[in-house]
Amino acid sequence: MKQYEHPLVEAFDLTAVLHALSDPYRLSVVQKLAEAQPQPCGPLQAGRPKSSVSHHFMVLRRAGVVRTEVVGALHMNSLRDTELEQRFPGLLSAVLKAAQSEQECRAG
Amino acid sequence: MKQYEHPLVEAFDLTAVLHALSDPYRLSVVQKLAEAQPQPCGPLQAGRPKSSVSHHFMVLRRAGVVRTEVVGALHMNSLRDTELEQRFPGLLSAVLKAAQSEQECRAG
Repeated sequence: MKQYEHPLVEAFDLTAVLHALSDPYRLSVVQKLAEAQPQPCGPLQAGRPKSSVSHHFMVLRRAGVVRTEVVGALHMNSLRDTELEQRFPGLLSAVLKAAQSEQECRAG
Repeated sequence: MKQYEHPLVEAFDLTAVLHALSDPYRLSVVQKLAEAQPQPCGPLQAGRPKSSVSHHFMVLRRAGVVRTEVVGALHMNSLRDTELEQRFPGLLSAVLKAAQSEQECRAG
């Protein structure tokens, strides 16, 4: 059974986390997981080809932003929000607030 | 006399800001400016070739992170921290705190 590798919280790298969050699709995945988690990849795919989605999830996993666990036939994704908060306090919540306020600006 | 272009605060894009901060050299420039500003490019160059430094400052300016103003023969750089705080509250300070804590982890 496929298992994914995830960095330890001590190995989180700030610029890798910022890079993972700096792509609009990856940021949208993080926002969706912040609203409801865990989620399988399917509803997060947003019409993208599977190879592109796999790549983006790999970037999120390697940075320590997302954890993917195999549960039966599903690959369930969740944010590593507690560990990110432990390592970089306030960072993820500031990014999520900024993303929401940006969307409200654009919608408004 | 050369003038640099800077986006209006309303045009700041979150993923562009995160991308600008996701490079170790650019993040180090932001940290140095957070300690003392404005500063000319020279002391921020850190032994890099001028073309590389120019590119990185362009990325920082286009994202709205840094403002460069021509003062006589000097190109003086400062953080747009007030405008970033206005647009994305808490983001820059969370990134600066995270960068500092990461450096302390590595040093300790």
